[in-house]
Amino acid sequence: MPKTNTNPLSGTRDFLPIDVLRRKYVVDIVERVYQKYGFEPLETPTMERLDTLLGKYGEEGDQLIFRVMKRGDKLSRMLEGDPSENTLADSGLRYDLTVPLARVAAEYQAQLPRVFKRYQIQPVFRADRPAKGRFREFFQCDLDIVGSTSQIVEAEVLNAAAEVFHLLGFEGASDFRFRLNHRWVLRGLMAVAGVPHDLEESAIVAIDKLDKIGIEGVRKELLGRSVPASAIESLEQLLDEAPEGNDAVLDWLEEKLSDSEGGSRAVSELRQLVSYIDNGPSSAHLFVDPYLARGLSYYTGPIFEVECAGFRGSAGGGGRYDDLIGMFAGRAIPACGFSLGLERVLLILEERGLFPERLSGQPQALMTLFAEETVAASLRLVQRLRAAGLRIDVYPESGKYAKQFKYADQRGIRYALLLGPSEIEQKTVGVKDLKTGDQRTLTIDELLDFLTSQA
Amino acid sequence: MPKTNTNPLSGTRDFLPIDVLRRKYVVDIVERVYQKYGFEPLETPTMERLDTLLGKYGEEGDQLIFRVMKRGDKLSRMLEGDPSENTLADSGLRYDLTVPLARVAAEYQAQLPRVFKRYQIQPVFRADRPAKGRFREFFQCDLDIVGSTSQIVEAEVLNAAAEVFHLLGFEGASDFRFRLNHRWVLRGLMAVAGVPHDLEESAIVAIDKLDKIGIEGVRKELLGRSVPASAIESLEQLLDEAPEGNDAVLDWLEEKLSDSEGGSRAVSELRQLVSYIDNGPSSAHLFVDPYLARGLSYYTGPIFEVECAGFRGSAGGGGRYDDLIGMFAGRAIPACGFSLGLERVLLILEERGLFPERLSGQPQALMTLFAEETVAASLRLVQRLRAAGLRIDVYPESGKYAKQFKYADQRGIRYALLLGPSEIEQKTVGVKDLKTGDQRTLTIDELLDFLTSQA
Repeated sequence: MPKTNTNPLSGTRDFLPIDVLRRKYVVDIVERVYQKYGFEPLETPTMERLDTLLGKYGEEGDQLIFRVMKRGDKLSRMLEGDPSENTLADSGLRYDLTVPLARVAAEYQAQLPRVFKRYQIQPVFRADRPAKGRFREFFQCDLDIVGSTSQIVEAEVLNAAAEVFHLLGFEGASDFRFRLNHRWVLRGLMAVAGVPHDLEESAIVAIDKLDKIGIEGVRKELLGRSVPASAIESLEQLLDEAPEGNDAVLDWLEEKLSDSEGGSRAVSELRQLVSYIDNGPSSAHLFVDPYLARGLSYYTGPIFEVECAGFRGSAGGGGRYDDLIGMFAGRAIPACGFSLGLERVLLILEERGLFPERLSGQPQALMTLFAEETVAASLRLVQRLRAAGLRIDVYPESGKYAKQFKYADQRGIRYALLLGPSEIEQKTVGVKDLKTGDQRTLTIDELLDFLTSQA
Repeated sequence: MPKTNTNPLSGTRDFLPIDVLRRKYVVDIVERVYQKYGFEPLETPTMERLDTLLGKYGEEGDQLIFRVMKRGDKLSRMLEGDPSENTLADSGLRYDLTVPLARVAAEYQAQLPRVFKRYQIQPVFRADRPAKGRFREFFQCDLDIVGSTSQIVEAEVLNAAAEVFHLLGFEGASDFRFRLNHRWVLRGLMAVAGVPHDLEESAIVAIDKLDKIGIEGVRKELLGRSVPASAIESLEQLLDEAPEGNDAVLDWLEEKLSDSEGGSRAVSELRQLVSYIDNGPSSAHLFVDPYLARGLSYYTGPIFEVECAGFRGSAGGGGRYDDLIGMFAGRAIPACGFSLGLERVLLILEERGLFPERLSGQPQALMTLFAEETVAASLRLVQRLRAAGLRIDVYPESGKYAKQFKYADQRGIRYALLLGPSEIEQKTVGVKDLKTGDQRTLTIDELLDFLTSQA
């Protein structure tokens, strides 16, 4: 048999049991919180029409879409003509969860409630060059509220996101923070600083890179994007003046932006949002930060990003985008959402040792098999323990204990149950703690109590 | 804006919230049971190398694989040459969960325990012609034990599968049944009946269609596959003689197959399996059925299929396949598994009304908003209820109750919470039952008790 390549495809990953259990641990918390906040789950197909996907993520994005080839006669006809990337494929793999949401919001308008609060946790696909922490298939955990312009929407989204971090073990006020800004605050400040109106969008893309390339880098990039040096200097001076503390920043912004209609409205929206959050789960973590830019051009209102203490880069972010969802419906539909950076969160939890020692779902004990004659009794005991709700694995072959203990050890199962002729006669069970090596003899009822208490 | 096609792609489905919650209800039960039996979760990438996929599912299967196109320079080079289906694509979408398991078992041999008990619940993709109940993306729920030839493996798999059906509400002994046979029992019977040895595999494919095309159809198909008419008649007479009752059938088979080494071993394996199951969850549902064929050629031992009372066709099936898993490892690795027909199970649950009335995850109440001045008090109440673990939705806009009640109704939320100036003053909350129309006034503590009791 020729040895075939059994690696997963470049940029993709096999999740072995321990990986899946860790991912499930996080996803279960995310789902529980999102549901507590009244969000409903949505799932969409892995493949979408190429028409649906193209032109939504910019030119660069279009190049990162995995295209699925036509088949049979359709393919043959295209191969006979002048075959190209677009004629050979008519569908592609999901690139994000926002475009599918927009398609769903348009298709099921009559069925969906006027306000649609949905969460969606599914893999997305990007034909990016694989690198450390950059994958071609990775999960997004999105929650969005579609259909209302009220800032209660932002408050709900931020509180839900904050509660996820609390439950993951980021308990202290300084363990994570939400940077909060408003797209029109930034545009207003640029106008005050003298950045030409038609360069505002472009400048936002440059400012968004502050974390990655530093202030010097941003200056260069702004110059490269034709922003006048004087405007850059004014903008920097202006941002340097910003005071600390949410109320102080908002007061300061109100004054600076008093001449800008959009800027003033933005400040009052932020004030409203902060007041709605009041003492909510996100309040201690909320920092109004006029520097926050968020690169995507589709944001139209408040924007936010979450940072975990001691880790560069964001662990999630989002904001209001009132023009995007309507693209398929043919009418504007307001929306605001948050996307949790699952892969990054998993990394941070690992580095901070925040995963529980025992992950839910692992077996509580292994039933070993002494010899063929004792198998029936062992299987009966297993049935009884499982009927009590316990998770019990059974080794499928009788024989040497050493082999069976090794198996338990490899699987992270701490207790091995031993049932030989003498135990069967005395109606007891041996319980070996594979961590300490201790071994005890218990009655069945004692065993039930013991394992239940370990659960 | 031109109206774009917002349907999901042909053969795929959008799962709106109620659909997702119903699927989750089933999948949660499946996972809980599989974990109780000591199985571990595995997840593999959506895309696999074309090399990995091709040649594993027969010629017909190869045609049903969705191929993902090469990109950039790689694609250009192929387009300049003599482009074909195979040169333009180098990867494809997962077609089942067994080939990925085989790849994983080979790749991580050093890390995985000697016996690998894994379950896997992921979508698979087949470019089949879409039809009622046949999809191009659908979920498989597989559980397999890799690495042991013991019949305890089959017993574990069958008991776990049976417990899933019990928990889904198929409680009676006659609500579902497992048909059980052995690949070598069938081959042995064919030999006795005079079916030429080299036609056995082909005849199995024909017999497998009994449910679909009836005995007359099977006869024709066997003739078409060159099985002599006399052998067909003998086989029919033979199978007609089979008595009722597992012990009686096994005794009868033992006698009929006494001259066949493979047949005799098969009967003793089935006896062993039945004894291991003893009083286990699957025992009351187990029927040894010499007719059962299972179409796939890779089975090498016991085979089984589950049928629900009143429904044609199987709701899942599986068996032992000792030669398949090793195809990537370069050495034989025994295995046995079961695949639950999730889409069919969902259909049966729906037709039999077995879904719970309230699906877990739906909000327990909607906080309505009376007016802008009462919003802060309403949001504080929501925080308090959520802190108690309740799932509470909040309508994001104050105003007419009718609109807010309609929203609750659309989402299937039964209770609307009302908090106007008088309730705020009296520290009470109005609770409207949208099903009956009744409205009551409760204190906050009473409300907490009430909603908790409804959970």
